[in-house]
Amino acid sequence: MVAAAVAAPLVIGVDVGGTKIRAAVADRDGRIRRRHELESPAGPQEEVLAAIDSAVAALLEETVGAVGLGIPGNLEARTGRLLRTTNLPLQDVDLQAWARARFGLPAAIENDANVAALAEWKLGAGRDVQTLVMITLGTGVGGGLVLGGELYRGWAEIGHVVVDVGGPPCQGNCHGHGHLEAIASGSAADRAARELWGPEADARLLVERARAGDDRAQARMAEIAAALGAAIGSFANLFNPELVVIGGGFGEAAGDLLLGPAQEAARCEALYPADGSIRLALAELGEDAGLVGASLIAFQALDGAW
Amino acid sequence: MVAAAVAAPLVIGVDVGGTKIRAAVADRDGRIRRRHELESPAGPQEEVLAAIDSAVAALLEETVGAVGLGIPGNLEARTGRLLRTTNLPLQDVDLQAWARARFGLPAAIENDANVAALAEWKLGAGRDVQTLVMITLGTGVGGGLVLGGELYRGWAEIGHVVVDVGGPPCQGNCHGHGHLEAIASGSAADRAARELWGPEADARLLVERARAGDDRAQARMAEIAAALGAAIGSFANLFNPELVVIGGGFGEAAGDLLLGPAQEAARCEALYPADGSIRLALAELGEDAGLVGASLIAFQALDGAW
Repeated sequence: MVAAAVAAPLVIGVDVGGTKIRAAVADRDGRIRRRHELESPAGPQEEVLAAIDSAVAALLEETVGAVGLGIPGNLEARTGRLLRTTNLPLQDVDLQAWARARFGLPAAIENDANVAALAEWKLGAGRDVQTLVMITLGTGVGGGLVLGGELYRGWAEIGHVVVDVGGPPCQGNCHGHGHLEAIASGSAADRAARELWGPEADARLLVERARAGDDRAQARMAEIAAALGAAIGSFANLFNPELVVIGGGFGEAAGDLLLGPAQEAARCEALYPADGSIRLALAELGEDAGLVGASLIAFQALDGAW
Repeated sequence: MVAAAVAAPLVIGVDVGGTKIRAAVADRDGRIRRRHELESPAGPQEEVLAAIDSAVAALLEETVGAVGLGIPGNLEARTGRLLRTTNLPLQDVDLQAWARARFGLPAAIENDANVAALAEWKLGAGRDVQTLVMITLGTGVGGGLVLGGELYRGWAEIGHVVVDVGGPPCQGNCHGHGHLEAIASGSAADRAARELWGPEADARLLVERARAGDDRAQARMAEIAAALGAAIGSFANLFNPELVVIGGGFGEAAGDLLLGPAQEAARCEALYPADGSIRLALAELGEDAGLVGASLIAFQALDGAW
């Protein structure tokens, strides 16, 4: 393994999602050399493992020294076993041990949003900071934390902080109310658009009309920004991050329309001196953040640092 | 210093508060041997330093090997300088360097709520867990985090997470709204009691009447428990703690009246499997948590581990 590690300049990162399994060969700078992508199987755990296996097998070559997996689920801190996944039929499995055995290589596994935060920190919008919060506003709201120069490897379920006690219910596997995800996700923005303009409207239209000056659209976007700012204020007071990175399809589509008001709201909630210093920026790695992050943990496994 | 460290079985811990400076000689098990207490001076920084000096000097003896200070303020992560204090005229000072120079001993400084969390973890309600959230419901709401077997040394301003966006304003130095402190602190409970029964009423009466079955008192306590539960739900989804320790004068007075409903509310907000496992317990060290925690960081300084 040591000889292989020295000889191997490349790894395979896999972003295991509910609809697609995306794999790539990447170098230490996060540059993607080759990709392979397939549909996520709807079937049982064995089919998901077989799909991951085939994605990796399609890319394996002599120069690949390790495999990293980003998984939409939470790991048990002490054992590394999967506790829970979102939209994937995996449960109570030690995927790291499985990958090591299956590929005969060092392997690492971590929550997909955590590795995306790692990627934005190392190679994206968060270069040069020590403490960072990443918030991904997509179908749901995810994210991760970098605290004092280290990826926080706990749950960091950023979308499931309560910002409005007794507020709107979460969807899917969460029975909570008033979580950030219930108000500021792309799905929540879709719902807001449908309420205003009927079943064909979506988050994209909401953003478009808010930009064009539509009052009702702007009011809905202001509610979303207020909730996002409140959550960021909470993170400011817990972690005093140097930077908050906003990613995800909805986050990137809304861009400055969301970032400006959310930063203002966050500064209202933040204690001194974060009330003057906290800063929001858009993510830089887009859809590839999870894939690049999975390759970064693969390099950590290769270096014996995982 | 090494010889002194080996010979010295004792340290001095100092809990520097806005009204009192409390110092104690303690052993490695957190047992307090001797105490010294004085009023906090209202005057400038030099008077506060002189008061800390005199509290330590009153207890210094041959067997004391280090000094630890718990301070009501936040430190800058990179430099250890005080960024902000609550109710104390200290600013932009490196107290750790000051204490080292002044006493000629290893010294440590940390936020008072963080060291109280450390004490409850090592010697109080949180023994044997690896991840813990401590929430102190006193005049304000403070607390600290132990993450994966280590005290989190960032801000951890537990009382200043937003639970009710656009909710009631914070008091004092915070310009936020709907923070946990604005709803669930002893001061907030005092205000609720005054609204119900006039200017003489306070949190103690609110708790007493809620216990006696008064509907309005119970409704107010239910609001407080809901806000506390919402914040704990957020912490569950960020950190998946094994235990949440509730301390502070109001928290201890309310006891099970608060803990039961707050635990239920937290489980509603928490993701699987925290929704079934998250557990609340009352703090065990009472008012001495900060003092004991200050002595624990002094031992870490003595051992070169701070």
